[in-house]
Amino acid sequence: MKNSSPDTQTNFDRQMMRRCLELARRAEGKTSPNPMVGSVIVKEGKIVGEGFHPSFGQPHAEVFALREAGDKAEGATVYVSLEPCNHYGKTPPCTDALIAAKVAKVVAGTIDPDPRVSGSGREKLQAAGIEVVVGVEETACRELNEVFIHRVTNKIPFGILKYAMTLDGKIAATTGHSSWVSGEESRSRVHKLRSNCDVVVVGGNTVRYDNPRLTSRGQKNPLRVVMSRSLNLPLDRRLWDIEEAPTLVFTEAVNNSQLHKQLVDKGVEIVELECLTPKEVMKCLYDRELYSVLWECGGVLAAAAIAEGAVQKVMAFIAPKIIGGETAPSPVGELGKNLMSEALQLKRVKLQQIESDFLIEGYL
Amino acid sequence: MKNSSPDTQTNFDRQMMRRCLELARRAEGKTSPNPMVGSVIVKEGKIVGEGFHPSFGQPHAEVFALREAGDKAEGATVYVSLEPCNHYGKTPPCTDALIAAKVAKVVAGTIDPDPRVSGSGREKLQAAGIEVVVGVEETACRELNEVFIHRVTNKIPFGILKYAMTLDGKIAATTGHSSWVSGEESRSRVHKLRSNCDVVVVGGNTVRYDNPRLTSRGQKNPLRVVMSRSLNLPLDRRLWDIEEAPTLVFTEAVNNSQLHKQLVDKGVEIVELECLTPKEVMKCLYDRELYSVLWECGGVLAAAAIAEGAVQKVMAFIAPKIIGGETAPSPVGELGKNLMSEALQLKRVKLQQIESDFLIEGYL
Repeated sequence: MKNSSPDTQTNFDRQMMRRCLELARRAEGKTSPNPMVGSVIVKEGKIVGEGFHPSFGQPHAEVFALREAGDKAEGATVYVSLEPCNHYGKTPPCTDALIAAKVAKVVAGTIDPDPRVSGSGREKLQAAGIEVVVGVEETACRELNEVFIHRVTNKIPFGILKYAMTLDGKIAATTGHSSWVSGEESRSRVHKLRSNCDVVVVGGNTVRYDNPRLTSRGQKNPLRVVMSRSLNLPLDRRLWDIEEAPTLVFTEAVNNSQLHKQLVDKGVEIVELECLTPKEVMKCLYDRELYSVLWECGGVLAAAAIAEGAVQKVMAFIAPKIIGGETAPSPVGELGKNLMSEALQLKRVKLQQIESDFLIEGYL
Repeated sequence: MKNSSPDTQTNFDRQMMRRCLELARRAEGKTSPNPMVGSVIVKEGKIVGEGFHPSFGQPHAEVFALREAGDKAEGATVYVSLEPCNHYGKTPPCTDALIAAKVAKVVAGTIDPDPRVSGSGREKLQAAGIEVVVGVEETACRELNEVFIHRVTNKIPFGILKYAMTLDGKIAATTGHSSWVSGEESRSRVHKLRSNCDVVVVGGNTVRYDNPRLTSRGQKNPLRVVMSRSLNLPLDRRLWDIEEAPTLVFTEAVNNSQLHKQLVDKGVEIVELECLTPKEVMKCLYDRELYSVLWECGGVLAAAAIAEGAVQKVMAFIAPKIIGGETAPSPVGELGKNLMSEALQLKRVKLQQIESDFLIEGYL
């Protein structure tokens, strides 16, 4: 077994792995529940094959790269952003294909945490006499598949809390009016983000007061989920139009209201939970094989989601404007923290400028 | 008269002007009420003299640059970040010195808005046959002296609202606990910022609950100003220790309380105003020749200061942490804006990363 430290990685290795990541990303939003994977085959310092996993059910990245390389794969080095699989799923194991192609070396970004792989791909390759190096650009490789890694490791979906706030920390004016906090380009980023997620969640108040569509504007739409304890919601909301995208309401209310019947008639799915919490909702979504959940809710639900571990990543869009408002809503409600030193520190924080807005993202 | 457009400015001109700005900044915080000015003299493509205005009462930048250049000033080009003065102040007019030195050309960053100069420096030089170009790196030259330009133009001090907030828009926990929102390096930047300002202002609640010192930790301290309508403040506050820095309290309360006497005994100055508003306080500070005012107050006073035009610049330190809190305070209180579209847009927004924090600054 060999884990490569930063010292033993060459610049060339890192460069090839970044190319794998680039290839993998071409299928962003299309591979779930599979991870995104890219692969590059190098012979005598030159790329002779490239590939990526295009979508669930399709062959894996290595297979496409091997096809392109043909005979040149013999004695070559295969770069792949995730450990090659070693099991029969929709397609045969990649390890077999690599061994059959007589490659000399495999450089993998990170071990596949899927219990069906989890190091066994490496072992199989090594047993066949292939040199294996793991851990090149590992952080980036893990971040690319953070959803996949989180769900196979923790058996629960990956949660992202996204909000847009003014520079004075408000997500709306005192009146609740919030369109729009961020600029056009930020909003278009949110559409893209939605299309890359399986689910978008809001609470009853967002449905009542903001009446959002929560779609991706032409791209693949997520399942739209509403959490409403009482099911006391208006009938004329955009979310009940399921022509655009499906909507699922989680509620504690028993099936006896007129609204319940009306929503079902419109094609909205309603699921009753004994105890409506972010954690329970995440479990239900996991059981439906929905693995990436975007929380686009108000502060109260956001706080509950954070407190219950349903949020792994925070994406805060900040618009350089001041709205003021003594009682204007802020992005996160009560977390029971009395001291500033108890605040939840974000890790691996990144910043991007998006036209005049800023996007700060990090991990809880 | 000649105003240079970006087309007629050469890269060399801009480079020399940026050098002037660099020189000018060496006296940051030391020139008030004068502006910061830097000057570079160039002969045959080479710098033959440099200078900057070191402090109030000392000679101007051009004079130091001319001294260094000596005879080489004849026929040379003088770069200076602000139009040369044309009046007797603490020192004789720079225009005379430039004419006497027989320079060929003067390139100024921007016109001096001081009514005693305001274009007359340029005219005097031109009348003497010197070529004058104005407006090279003008935005940067104006920003460097934003305090000076604001106060000579508007006859009121320049106000900066500074706050530190979490990524979820809170300046403190629900309990009011706020030490510390931002990291060490950000706090050290605030100390530097204070030392560059003439005044720091807080309200009564900040004195009551945060008990700050508002000093520059070893650098020149600002005047510490408290705005307290009632003068109902605790006696054991750090601000009453005037060994470190002077403190001035503005109040509406008439001089009859015991606290009033006790504070005066401690050396705290108390000024009674009929109507205690940010605007009135700014007027009083202007009359005392205090021109840069840093608002380090809570949201209520910050909102009043913004509403009354006492804030020109906003500096928001954002720490990548989540504290939560339904009633946790946010940086700006009520501004009476009902729609998000009424929000005050910041202009010329800049972003800096300061260790793990972010500083977003812009102009109202």
